[in-house]
Amino acid sequence: MITTPHAIPNRHVQELRELRKKHLNPALSLSYQEPLKIVKGAGAYLYDEQGNAYLDMVNNVCHVGHCHPAVVAAGQAQMAQLNTNTRYLHDNIVEYAQRLSATLPQELSVVFLTNSGTEANDLALRIAKTYTQANDIIVVDHAYHGNSPSMIELSPYKFNSKGGSGRPAHIQVAEIPDDYRGRFLREDPQAGERYAQDVQRAVHDIHQRGQQPAAFYCESILGCGGQVVLPPSYLQHAYGHARAAGAVCIADEVQVGFGRAGKHFWAFESQGVVPDIVTMGKPICNGHPMGAVVTRPEIAQAFLNGMEYFNTFAGNPVSCAMGLAVLDVIQDEHLQKNAAQVGDYLINGLRSLQTRHPIIGDVRGMGLFIGVELVKNHEDKTPATKETRSIIEYLKTHRILLSSDGPHDNVLKIKPPIVFTQANAEEFLQRLEEALLV
Amino acid sequence: MITTPHAIPNRHVQELRELRKKHLNPALSLSYQEPLKIVKGAGAYLYDEQGNAYLDMVNNVCHVGHCHPAVVAAGQAQMAQLNTNTRYLHDNIVEYAQRLSATLPQELSVVFLTNSGTEANDLALRIAKTYTQANDIIVVDHAYHGNSPSMIELSPYKFNSKGGSGRPAHIQVAEIPDDYRGRFLREDPQAGERYAQDVQRAVHDIHQRGQQPAAFYCESILGCGGQVVLPPSYLQHAYGHARAAGAVCIADEVQVGFGRAGKHFWAFESQGVVPDIVTMGKPICNGHPMGAVVTRPEIAQAFLNGMEYFNTFAGNPVSCAMGLAVLDVIQDEHLQKNAAQVGDYLINGLRSLQTRHPIIGDVRGMGLFIGVELVKNHEDKTPATKETRSIIEYLKTHRILLSSDGPHDNVLKIKPPIVFTQANAEEFLQRLEEALLV
Repeated sequence: MITTPHAIPNRHVQELRELRKKHLNPALSLSYQEPLKIVKGAGAYLYDEQGNAYLDMVNNVCHVGHCHPAVVAAGQAQMAQLNTNTRYLHDNIVEYAQRLSATLPQELSVVFLTNSGTEANDLALRIAKTYTQANDIIVVDHAYHGNSPSMIELSPYKFNSKGGSGRPAHIQVAEIPDDYRGRFLREDPQAGERYAQDVQRAVHDIHQRGQQPAAFYCESILGCGGQVVLPPSYLQHAYGHARAAGAVCIADEVQVGFGRAGKHFWAFESQGVVPDIVTMGKPICNGHPMGAVVTRPEIAQAFLNGMEYFNTFAGNPVSCAMGLAVLDVIQDEHLQKNAAQVGDYLINGLRSLQTRHPIIGDVRGMGLFIGVELVKNHEDKTPATKETRSIIEYLKTHRILLSSDGPHDNVLKIKPPIVFTQANAEEFLQRLEEALLV
Repeated sequence: MITTPHAIPNRHVQELRELRKKHLNPALSLSYQEPLKIVKGAGAYLYDEQGNAYLDMVNNVCHVGHCHPAVVAAGQAQMAQLNTNTRYLHDNIVEYAQRLSATLPQELSVVFLTNSGTEANDLALRIAKTYTQANDIIVVDHAYHGNSPSMIELSPYKFNSKGGSGRPAHIQVAEIPDDYRGRFLREDPQAGERYAQDVQRAVHDIHQRGQQPAAFYCESILGCGGQVVLPPSYLQHAYGHARAAGAVCIADEVQVGFGRAGKHFWAFESQGVVPDIVTMGKPICNGHPMGAVVTRPEIAQAFLNGMEYFNTFAGNPVSCAMGLAVLDVIQDEHLQKNAAQVGDYLINGLRSLQTRHPIIGDVRGMGLFIGVELVKNHEDKTPATKETRSIIEYLKTHRILLSSDGPHDNVLKIKPPIVFTQANAEEFLQRLEEALLV
């Protein structure tokens, strides 16, 4: 007898909320005061149970559009054929590793697959420590690198917030290179170099405690820090300081990679550097669980110290087929170029809004990863946190999904699927202006 | 323009091996001296590129059979409809949490979803530490709980092996309760209680260093330890000692859960205990990446200390649809009963072989999780490691896939998809006897 899947009851919102309360992780919040029941996704849109379409400007995971037919087809076909582990030879994993490394600078040629961005950053930590035989880590303030115990330890966004236990002794936090709100401003052509000095300070503090730095982790555009674009040459100088002390440099591209940055496939490229390790997640399979670590051959070889790295699900033929389809779609549908063009259009539109609405303190971003920082005044930049919340709720009533981030939760976080069109951008700009006039 | 996925080249085995060497994680070994290129899976069988069928006795991940049509159909349908995160309401996750908790003792009612067994054990660690406000952990010797930095730290299988850095100070290792090879043997009705004494010793050592235990982790049947069935009442006593010291008791069911144990849906049930936290992985979605942590409401509530636990991919509608289909299939196709019946048949057959072949030192197991320990003699139980390897290669030439485990790598590790039939068992017993006569 062959089973057919049982029908899943269609429950009312209230019942779902009650069952979540009873049976699900309480430390997981829902979006919005009145949460949405979303039942369908297509392109840049999500649909609720009544069939209302919401323009999704939150989701950098469903990267090439919700339920993209090519990615779905690749997953559907492979899952009916074979889904097993990587201890057998298979075409998909080899093709994927080759295709993925071809998007990166030549020296980044060895691929490790995982099930998530957290697992990727966790693995990068193991690789960095094994390669350097050192233990201490330098991170950037307000960074978030994952939800595992080790990643909470190196995420100031977590360890310095509610429920956190503060900075562990082996972690050094470098000043956030925020050239809108920080010590060195955008007008200063040396802001990047000056912020990078704090990485040197972190190295010094590690040496003071008799240790060596294993790695410098940095998101290529800072996400939880508030959609902060790194000032020119920041990574160049920061990598210089880290490497002079023997550390490896890890570019966390979990949020921003795979063409989202527009001008570049990888956002670190905008800084003119080549990292030692790149970590990937969210957009890699358009929502299917996968992550990756890519590194230089000599670092990968040093990791080969006798301890296997086997990961049960990671690199299975289904994940790799879907990852390949994502690369195909980005290329065939010219989505990196779309991110660049629509991103520029959106940034220009937001800067035009800024001239009329003083609450907009700053507009920054790259491609379709954009932050709009709201402030009560331009002089002391008092965060307009409550207003940010209101704007997000207003946009929701007009069926646009957006969220906020940053240490003061006053930055509109724009990161839609990169199929987002100019018409979508126009709609958003119009609704945002309405919200600002409310 | 809508992309169709590009064709993936069909490469020769030799080329795949070379490309793996160039582009893939070097710390990942292939199975067998001459690795297989596997291209298809169905039921208990894997197929190579020539269409040869291999009976898969290794894979406890593709739990209800490779590419089970009901699980595949559930995944295919949902991935075309919606795959997004858990910040919106959705029927699938609520239904899954409810259905999963219904398989467990009533007090285990709060579900956290992750992308892997490693992520589940990592999350369990965070929950245990937050709940107990303690830091030290007790594990069982030779245990493996995952590949993340924190899980390597608490896996003696890793930290005491090649490339490992030994036992961290905050981890205590309790003696493995191996009643074939250890200090107390199966004939001793108090073996379980006696082995559990070492958990008490571990608590004592933690107190000696001025700390408190946060958790006692134990696989419900020991996997990397050598397919070791816990002696009767071991967990009851071990949990007693751990709880008396304020620790929570974590049952790691990643390898053995979901009906594999035959008489019980969860292997810990065979010990007459109720854990505080249960962790799950491998079989949960038949190969699709998912993991879970289930705990008591009061522990879940204590975890709610202000720090979110959000996991990008985990609990998405596709994973939950596939998890639900796995539960449906186990139930509708009576696979737990099958595991019990075929498992008993196989164990009896192996014990009968044992009477004729002195190299079989021990046959142990529960349902379709079975270990056959090979020794050079019954007196000092010298491990027959080389012979174990030869048997596995012999079986491969006869198209049966099997692997080995245990501290001496001399235990045949039997854990096929639980659709494994009596005819499959007969075939295996016959081929194994041939291998023993070679």
